[in-house]
Amino acid sequence: MANLHPYCIINGSLQPRSTAAIGLDDMALNRGYGVFDFFKVMQGMPMHLDAHLQRLFHSAKHMHLQIDEDVERWKSLIQQLLIANHVQDAGVKILVTAGYAANGYSIASPNIIITTQPLTAKKEEDYTKGISVITHEYQREMPDVKSINYTRGIWLLPQIAAAGASDVLYYANDLLSESPRSNVFVVTTAGVLLTPEHNMLKGITRQQVLSIASQHVSVACTDVTITDLRNAAEVFITSTTKGILPVTTIDGMPVGNGLPGKITLQLMQSLEKHEKHLLKLQIA
Amino acid sequence: MANLHPYCIINGSLQPRSTAAIGLDDMALNRGYGVFDFFKVMQGMPMHLDAHLQRLFHSAKHMHLQIDEDVERWKSLIQQLLIANHVQDAGVKILVTAGYAANGYSIASPNIIITTQPLTAKKEEDYTKGISVITHEYQREMPDVKSINYTRGIWLLPQIAAAGASDVLYYANDLLSESPRSNVFVVTTAGVLLTPEHNMLKGITRQQVLSIASQHVSVACTDVTITDLRNAAEVFITSTTKGILPVTTIDGMPVGNGLPGKITLQLMQSLEKHEKHLLKLQIA
Repeated sequence: MANLHPYCIINGSLQPRSTAAIGLDDMALNRGYGVFDFFKVMQGMPMHLDAHLQRLFHSAKHMHLQIDEDVERWKSLIQQLLIANHVQDAGVKILVTAGYAANGYSIASPNIIITTQPLTAKKEEDYTKGISVITHEYQREMPDVKSINYTRGIWLLPQIAAAGASDVLYYANDLLSESPRSNVFVVTTAGVLLTPEHNMLKGITRQQVLSIASQHVSVACTDVTITDLRNAAEVFITSTTKGILPVTTIDGMPVGNGLPGKITLQLMQSLEKHEKHLLKLQIA
Repeated sequence: MANLHPYCIINGSLQPRSTAAIGLDDMALNRGYGVFDFFKVMQGMPMHLDAHLQRLFHSAKHMHLQIDEDVERWKSLIQQLLIANHVQDAGVKILVTAGYAANGYSIASPNIIITTQPLTAKKEEDYTKGISVITHEYQREMPDVKSINYTRGIWLLPQIAAAGASDVLYYANDLLSESPRSNVFVVTTAGVLLTPEHNMLKGITRQQVLSIASQHVSVACTDVTITDLRNAAEVFITSTTKGILPVTTIDGMPVGNGLPGKITLQLMQSLEKHEKHLLKLQIA
């Protein structure tokens, strides 16, 4: 990765990735206190950058982290890194920590770390056959903030693997919320597309799907119960890296006929077309 | 701090503290995934080191972090650092992160960071007048694990300051649990010492207090309700750095007569004597 993406930006300054590091007093390292955002770059173009920056500003503000909100300055910083790393297709991560706190327990001037990384290759089979997930009762703290606290999701990895699954859906009080790094959509047997509206992070890909879905299907952002999930005709999850990923097994039981559903496949095609279109507009 | 404590130990190797750093792919930095423990050194002697190491091993194990459990090896490593830093009285922190995960979302070989630091001087007034706290409804995740997730406690700092307070007590379902970095004790008007037994971290100082308290007072480790707290004659919190610290104002209301109580003062004296005794035994 170091060879492919030789530089990063720490607190505004371009640095070699191979030697870049954070001091031991950082508050993310010691107290898990920080927020981040992550976006895709395609053909050198950052995708939905404004939406990601706005969400980062929201996350930082909610967590009392004071960061610059000058969008143009952010864009030029990111551009500097994309050029330095000769980035065509990649992911960009912006991490904002509570900085170096002298007393080890307060919010200091943030450390801001921008890195680029190869996009993980999509496993073809996951998209043609769908993935298997488990469910787990859990409510993320401050769910509309993209905090760095992934303790539960990572802690569950052995349990997910033991179930032969590859991800987990969270629910609480009988309501579905999200997956640790994705949003979730359910297609009912009546052909209505449902997605939770509360107690989850509002994904940028989720927003894209909502914007294109009404061409194909009735859509409702609403409470989605565990029963809705169990009775679903189709289920899929969405994220920046995954796009739309069909879920065909939940807690060992098939969703619908156990194959990616018709509406899911339509939306996958439609989202791809939509992203290509947006990219074309941006390049033009 | 760098001058006073010039060295740290990272993954077993002694390094200058001033240049020590952690790479950008560390899982505590990026995902808030890690555990730690912290103990006091007095006159060059680590206090309750076995208890702290056992708790660290428990925390790591629960979080799927594989670390060496050879106590003698840990002690010799810590001794190496104490000698290098000429430590007489200090705090020692052992941080265990989920390491450098190639995919950014898994548990890798832990990074283990051992640092020493000056003990923060106790504010005399806090002990003679007692401190003011607020209450906040919250249940820590994995409460018997000393994880690095202090998001809520740190996020509350502005709210605590705005209330003119200096700490917060957590409760959930009407039951008192703990303070972000301390345990809590309540003395009832009938003169019984209560402390929560569930849904909190079992502090080493809490254990010391329990071991000496029965000389002075009836003791019960049990459910402590918010009503018990509101009606308390005396309240105090305990931690490695704070020892026993009286709480004399809760949510703006005085506890008892608003001054540190008789039993609290007795226990403060008794704990100090107990620690001096233990230290003498260790040195002998």
